[in-house]
Amino acid sequence: MYYIGIDLGGTSIKVGIVSEEGEILIKTSSATPVKKGFEGVLVRIKELIDEVMIEKKIDKKNIAAVGIGIPGACSQEGFVYFASNLFWKKVPLAERLHEMTGLKVYVENDATVAAVGEYIKGVTKGKKNAIFLTLGTGVGGGFIINNKIYSGSHGIGAEVGHMVIGKNFYDCTCGNHGCLETFVSATALIKYCKKLLEENKESLVFHRVDGNLDNLTAKIIFDCARKGDSTALKVIDRMTHYLAIGLANLINLFDPEVIAIGGGVAEAGDVFIEKLREEVKKYIYVKDMNVTEIVLAELKNDAGIIGSGMYAKFNNSSSREIQNYAKMK
Amino acid sequence: MYYIGIDLGGTSIKVGIVSEEGEILIKTSSATPVKKGFEGVLVRIKELIDEVMIEKKIDKKNIAAVGIGIPGACSQEGFVYFASNLFWKKVPLAERLHEMTGLKVYVENDATVAAVGEYIKGVTKGKKNAIFLTLGTGVGGGFIINNKIYSGSHGIGAEVGHMVIGKNFYDCTCGNHGCLETFVSATALIKYCKKLLEENKESLVFHRVDGNLDNLTAKIIFDCARKGDSTALKVIDRMTHYLAIGLANLINLFDPEVIAIGGGVAEAGDVFIEKLREEVKKYIYVKDMNVTEIVLAELKNDAGIIGSGMYAKFNNSSSREIQNYAKMK
Repeated sequence: MYYIGIDLGGTSIKVGIVSEEGEILIKTSSATPVKKGFEGVLVRIKELIDEVMIEKKIDKKNIAAVGIGIPGACSQEGFVYFASNLFWKKVPLAERLHEMTGLKVYVENDATVAAVGEYIKGVTKGKKNAIFLTLGTGVGGGFIINNKIYSGSHGIGAEVGHMVIGKNFYDCTCGNHGCLETFVSATALIKYCKKLLEENKESLVFHRVDGNLDNLTAKIIFDCARKGDSTALKVIDRMTHYLAIGLANLINLFDPEVIAIGGGVAEAGDVFIEKLREEVKKYIYVKDMNVTEIVLAELKNDAGIIGSGMYAKFNNSSSREIQNYAKMK
Repeated sequence: MYYIGIDLGGTSIKVGIVSEEGEILIKTSSATPVKKGFEGVLVRIKELIDEVMIEKKIDKKNIAAVGIGIPGACSQEGFVYFASNLFWKKVPLAERLHEMTGLKVYVENDATVAAVGEYIKGVTKGKKNAIFLTLGTGVGGGFIINNKIYSGSHGIGAEVGHMVIGKNFYDCTCGNHGCLETFVSATALIKYCKKLLEENKESLVFHRVDGNLDNLTAKIIFDCARKGDSTALKVIDRMTHYLAIGLANLINLFDPEVIAIGGGVAEAGDVFIEKLREEVKKYIYVKDMNVTEIVLAELKNDAGIIGSGMYAKFNNSSSREIQNYAKMK
């Protein structure tokens, strides 16, 4: 049997067919028609599912279930409480997509399904207690605790991005102040870099955006840091410092075997991972026991499709022991 | 059968005999002879165990096991990595006490055993996901996750007191800056109150300590707050604010059914619990889902003895399903 894995974001929808072993057979994507609302997005998802099934000549009877990772919070029944980037609030995603496709549909937070992907196929494979962080536009989290997916008593846990860790120069979109997300997301890097560039226009960064700060991306900042630009380095140093505090908090609370960092920012992980590990050492409570591995995620852009496909497989199984899947080759 | 429950602190050792149902049959206590070192403390513990057994005419063959809650971190085998207030580092507590008593000995962090006590006999009874916080000289934490005790992959998790949440006017004893403990422990209340009193000697607090700030305790601050003293109220407000941020962090991460607050500071919970609940609402990420109960712990001073006794029972059982004990009357 096969699974449909869907990575639903505010910018794009990625859909793939995933094998029992977590391999992607085919994938496609499309911009997310956010403005068309919940039903409009559903229609596009259905089109993409049809597209990959037709292309691969895989019939509905060979699809065991559909998994979707969403940028928000939902119940175990696939009722979405909210997904800010999609402007969704209280929508019955699993129910509606099941009506449209006739397939079983399982919904989870996007970072949680990516954590599942990494646990089954990636860098946290089979680790009893693992935390996955995704650093992108925002910061998401997915937890594996005692070899089980953990998203809390009501499905609203693992919101690592909204852990308050300090004072910042701007508020979080959630209304709080000092959320981890406002220090270490791509958005945070851009904001802080702009702030520094207001004072110092001599930076290489300023040249790379042709003098127009609207063109600034996290990637440009990382590129400039690699070339030794002092402004860019200052931005990365600050991010590394606060990320270390965030990871130390997670270690002091969860004491996991491993923390994996994914998302766009992690793709430039070579720039900061060593320094990050050094800084975390300083902030953990039991300094003699520096035992949590800190690693970069493996599945990159495919984490969402593989993870949601595997999440569907897991939910569709009788034993619901995710542990068994981590033993697959 | 019976269990010996031991609450080992930097100031006192409390020892009791606990029934299968978690009732204390007898208890005693003594100052902790910290200066006599590890072996000296062991001797005193042994004396207290003998005392309660002789007093209750309960023979060793009727004691199934011993549980100890320690102010520090340890392995599952009862090897203590460190316990700062006792000046212990890397001592084989379970092994040595077993040699001295011939009884099976189980060791856990003091807040974790108190969490076990509350889960079996107290205010978090049978809740699938529950967090216990103890606010005393420091701040400790104990987690129940999926109806199991959770202290991490290496026994060094649940260190809630050392979650960094902001900037403070002094450093934490752990070497970090901004730990929750430096905002909400009894020590933190005293430090902040002294700071305010340097500027304003008109406070009722100043009179209550007879002008000598060395006499200041958290209890005096709470008493003065109840009488409307503005300095004391300012201290409690600040504590409540930061405690709300800390609890919101825990809710955003764990999404538990309940958070229970124990320890000395919680005994004055009537002064701040309502305001705390209101503030937490403001800081949680999913504001529509204000579903985590925030309650004061029930077992008070007996939490350590009951909790460690029940921890011993749990560890000594074949199923090790703590869930079953929470069903006891």
